[in-house]
Amino acid sequence: MKTLINLAAKTPTQYIIVNGTTYAYRRFGNKTGIPVIGFQHFTGTLDNWDPVIINGLAEHREIIIFDNKGIGNSDGETPDNVLDMTKDAIEFIKALGVEKFDVLGFSLGGFIAQYLGVHYSEMVRKIIMVGTAPQGAKVLEGFYDLIARGSQLSPAELFLYIFFTKSENSRSKGREALQRLFERSEDRDKDTAEKAVVAQAKAITGWGVTSDIDVAEIKHPVLIIQGSNDEMMDSDTSYELFKTIPNAILSYYPDSAHGSFFQYPEIFVQQANDFLDKFE
Amino acid sequence: MKTLINLAAKTPTQYIIVNGTTYAYRRFGNKTGIPVIGFQHFTGTLDNWDPVIINGLAEHREIIIFDNKGIGNSDGETPDNVLDMTKDAIEFIKALGVEKFDVLGFSLGGFIAQYLGVHYSEMVRKIIMVGTAPQGAKVLEGFYDLIARGSQLSPAELFLYIFFTKSENSRSKGREALQRLFERSEDRDKDTAEKAVVAQAKAITGWGVTSDIDVAEIKHPVLIIQGSNDEMMDSDTSYELFKTIPNAILSYYPDSAHGSFFQYPEIFVQQANDFLDKFE
Repeated sequence: MKTLINLAAKTPTQYIIVNGTTYAYRRFGNKTGIPVIGFQHFTGTLDNWDPVIINGLAEHREIIIFDNKGIGNSDGETPDNVLDMTKDAIEFIKALGVEKFDVLGFSLGGFIAQYLGVHYSEMVRKIIMVGTAPQGAKVLEGFYDLIARGSQLSPAELFLYIFFTKSENSRSKGREALQRLFERSEDRDKDTAEKAVVAQAKAITGWGVTSDIDVAEIKHPVLIIQGSNDEMMDSDTSYELFKTIPNAILSYYPDSAHGSFFQYPEIFVQQANDFLDKFE
Repeated sequence: MKTLINLAAKTPTQYIIVNGTTYAYRRFGNKTGIPVIGFQHFTGTLDNWDPVIINGLAEHREIIIFDNKGIGNSDGETPDNVLDMTKDAIEFIKALGVEKFDVLGFSLGGFIAQYLGVHYSEMVRKIIMVGTAPQGAKVLEGFYDLIARGSQLSPAELFLYIFFTKSENSRSKGREALQRLFERSEDRDKDTAEKAVVAQAKAITGWGVTSDIDVAEIKHPVLIIQGSNDEMMDSDTSYELFKTIPNAILSYYPDSAHGSFFQYPEIFVQQANDFLDKFE
């Protein structure tokens, strides 16, 4: 499953200071064309991107992953709403000098992806959304319950509980994915602080009662990826996103949950690279 | 869009006689591994397979396309039900000496694919279904009406009406696809006779009121492809198929109808080859 050089494990973390906030990021891969920027899930840091996925994308393009404000090794205060997170991200991206980029938004990062498509459409070329949901998704009313149910679990079991189904097949793919997340042994990111987690949770539940954009306005090519059984986002909501966004491909993966692309990383990489290279 | 050698246009039609029936077929491509066999749509013949698609598959595997009983240049009487069509297809496949194959079932061919997965599971390795529906699909009650509405159109307009949406983008991709279907200038197939068309129409509407299999029993890897706006099969029914078949990937293409893979042939070829090579 590994590429020859595991850039995800080896690329040093860099820092950039913007308006007094220090953002941690890593930037690597094939520098031709425009970069893809990864927008991470609830609590996730630089070290929560699956190396198979970001190495696989990096073979064909440059990839930038970063900790948004208050996450991991980035300082500042994490906002309690997605719109401000989006503005922070844009602040960081502009500071890097990136004028146009592709979006890889996972879960909460997929919420940001939707704001980017509507409010920053000219900076965005294409958008990939994984395991996410539209504004107003009813399922988000149950987000705190879902997290509470997982709170007694060990970190490894919590990872399986959130991202994989209860089948042995899915869980075994989950254990492999978890192992991949620890291939990087040095210069690892800090865990996200509790204060930031609380703000993110508020932003996620808030997304469920917000309706300030219409994703029908997203004119970019979009690739939506979802698992068959995502309890957190409700798999059906991806079909709703697909039916509203005018130029989207939607793919569902079987027997998989919120972490569908952790479970089928090679299928995902092929599909994502093909989408980024060829789909107009 | 063309491969270097257009095998779809150049491969001669062959014939094989089985129990008194002559079947017309073409067989070409990379002879490593097991072949993919194409099961065609309502009225479709050997010449209705998109060359970009079958050439693209043939680069990586052998492809066999054929006229089922009573279709195109095959003689015999076309059955008025899908189960007997499936039995005829198996008769033909066994006569070729093929013991194991991958299935590419389009529309009516996707109905046959479902019977193959349940009743001939040991002969099948993987299944691709495009623009199809499960048994009992309510939309098929409207099949005769849909055909009647199209019956006043020219052949080219009928093709666009059935396989593409009303958008100019979709229709222009439709005109390109139609042109590809005429790249083969010699040794073309006969149009399907009216008697066979009547029998096929009865089989299709019959599928809407049949429930003699449970697709949950299909244990093969399955790839389901559908357009966003398939009026004939109802796009939503592909999501139902996905939720019932245990190991299926489902992909929807945007602004597309019954002929979704005609509209995105290169995206489809990449996805299909990747599915056939890597998805377990």
